[in-house]
Amino acid sequence: MRFDVTILGSSSATPIYNRNPTAQALNINERFYLIDCGEGTQQQMLRFDIKSSRIDYIFISHLHGDHYLGLVGLLSSLHLNGRKKPLTLFGPPHLKEIIDIQFKYSETTLHFELIFYPTNAEKAEVILDNQDITVETIILDHRVACTGFLFRQKRRLRKINKEKADELEVPVTYYSILKRGVDYLTTDGQVHPNSELTTPADEPMAYAYCSDTLYNESYFKQIANVDLLYHEATFAHAMLDRANETHHTTALQAGEIARLTGAKKLLIGHFSARYKTLTELLDEARSVFPETELAIEGKNFIIGN
Amino acid sequence: MRFDVTILGSSSATPIYNRNPTAQALNINERFYLIDCGEGTQQQMLRFDIKSSRIDYIFISHLHGDHYLGLVGLLSSLHLNGRKKPLTLFGPPHLKEIIDIQFKYSETTLHFELIFYPTNAEKAEVILDNQDITVETIILDHRVACTGFLFRQKRRLRKINKEKADELEVPVTYYSILKRGVDYLTTDGQVHPNSELTTPADEPMAYAYCSDTLYNESYFKQIANVDLLYHEATFAHAMLDRANETHHTTALQAGEIARLTGAKKLLIGHFSARYKTLTELLDEARSVFPETELAIEGKNFIIGN
Repeated sequence: MRFDVTILGSSSATPIYNRNPTAQALNINERFYLIDCGEGTQQQMLRFDIKSSRIDYIFISHLHGDHYLGLVGLLSSLHLNGRKKPLTLFGPPHLKEIIDIQFKYSETTLHFELIFYPTNAEKAEVILDNQDITVETIILDHRVACTGFLFRQKRRLRKINKEKADELEVPVTYYSILKRGVDYLTTDGQVHPNSELTTPADEPMAYAYCSDTLYNESYFKQIANVDLLYHEATFAHAMLDRANETHHTTALQAGEIARLTGAKKLLIGHFSARYKTLTELLDEARSVFPETELAIEGKNFIIGN
Repeated sequence: MRFDVTILGSSSATPIYNRNPTAQALNINERFYLIDCGEGTQQQMLRFDIKSSRIDYIFISHLHGDHYLGLVGLLSSLHLNGRKKPLTLFGPPHLKEIIDIQFKYSETTLHFELIFYPTNAEKAEVILDNQDITVETIILDHRVACTGFLFRQKRRLRKINKEKADELEVPVTYYSILKRGVDYLTTDGQVHPNSELTTPADEPMAYAYCSDTLYNESYFKQIANVDLLYHEATFAHAMLDRANETHHTTALQAGEIARLTGAKKLLIGHFSARYKTLTELLDEARSVFPETELAIEGKNFIIGN
C-alpha cells in the first residue's frame, strides 16, 4: 500500500520566490489526503502532477491564511472540472463560514457534496477511520486554535515469497491479491493457502504532521515512535525569542522533538522568509537528530509501502 | 510619465500549468495599480519582480474567485512585511465582508490603513482622481455584478528639444524637470522659458480593462479610442453559445469590440483552460483587428510614456 507524502509548500506566513505556503499531498493507497492548502496549492498540484480529482480528504490545521487561502480556489476548480464525488473536509469550525460566504457572493453551488467536520482544538480525537488509516488530531500550541494530524496505517501488505510463487508459476498480476492475504487458486482449481506464498506484513506505519506550534511537550507522547515526523521549524535557534513570541518552533527544537519522541525520520518545514537558503536550519536540526530532511517543494518522501 | 501594464495572470476560472488567474499591475508614474488579484498573484509579483510594497491602489472587478482569491494573502504579506502607508481598495461591496471575516478568524489587525471604496455595478462613475490619472468604472454584463476600469492619464510630459538643450548645455539631470514644464535656470541666473526647450506633450493616454463580460454594446461609447484595450476573450467563436451562457466574450467579438470602439491596440486574456495553446484565439481576434496581442504572464505592454 502506497503511503508517501509530496511537499507542495514549505514557507511560513509570507511566500518567497520558489517557496509556497504550506500544503502536503499524502498518497495513501492511491487516494490523496491534502494537508493544509496555502495560496497557490492548486497551481503546485499542476506543477508536480498531483491529480486534484483524486483528493478525497482535506485537513486544515488552523485559520492563518498561509494554511488555507488556496482552499476556495481548489474547491472551485474541482467544481468547474466536473467533480461529482463527495469531498470530506476537516478544519476549525469557522472555516465553513469563510467558505460559505465566498461561494454565496460568487453565486456558486458546488456540484459535489462537501462534507465538513469541524475539528476540536481542545481535545485530541480520532476524526477519520476508513479502510486504510485512522487520523487523529494533535493539539498544538499556536496563537489561534490549531491541530496537527496523525495518520496511522491500519494494515500493511503481506510480502510475496518469490521463490514459492515462481515454483507455483503464480502470474505476477495475482501478487496484489496475495499481498492482501487471499489464498491462491490455480486454474485447475487447486487451493494454496496464502501463508504458503507470503510472509507477514510489517507493522503499520505512522505519519505525524505538526504545524504550527510552540515547543510544548503535551503532544510528545501521542506522536511517539512515528515513522515520519513533519515538524515546523520556522526559525533557527538564534531566534528562539521570536519563535516563542509567535508560537513557533526552532530547527533545533524540532530535532529535539524527533529525538525525544523516537521518530524514525524528521522532515522540517514552514521556513521563515528570512532564510534564503536552508542549510542553517537543516544543520541545526541534524546536530541533534541526523535523520532530518528539508520539506522542499516537489519532494516526495516514502513513509511505508 | 510611465504608463504600462504587466500581466500577472491570464487564465479564466481554473488555472492551468503556467497560466495563473487574472491580475495585472499597472505602473503609472512609478506607482502600482493592481487590477484584480487571482490566487497566486503575490507569487507572480515575486516572479516578475513587481514590488508589492509599491502598490497604492487595488481594483477588484467582481467576486468570482479567479479575480480576487489572492487578495487576503497579498494584504497579509504586506502587513507582515511591515507596510505602514495606507492602501486603497475598490471592489464590490461584499468584498469587505469577505476580507473582514478572514482577518477576524486569523486574529489579524493590519498595521496599515485599508481604505475600502465599494464600487457600484449599476452606474459608471469616476472612482479615483489623483495627480496622475482618473479612473472610471465600466459597467460590464456578467453573471454577478462586475465592473471594468478605465484609466485616463491626466497629463503627459512635454518633449525635450534635444538640439536646443545641447546648445544650452542643459545637464541631462534637468530633463525630467523640463518635461514637466518648468523654465530652465542656468547656473549664472539666466532664465530660458520652457517653451524654448520643449515641445508640447502628446495627448493623455487611456487604458480600458474589460473582464468579465458578455458582448454588450452598452459600454462601447465609454471606451472609445483608448490607446490600449484589454478585453477578455475566454472562448473561440466556435463556442459562442457557451460564451453567451456563461456571460463571456469570444476572441472574434473582442476583435470586433476593438475595431468598433477605435482602440489603438487590443490585448486579449482570461483564456479558458481548454486552450492549451493560444494561437487560435490570437488569429481569430487578429482576423478583425490586426493590432492584437496575447495578455501572457510576465509580458509588459507600454500604454504611454
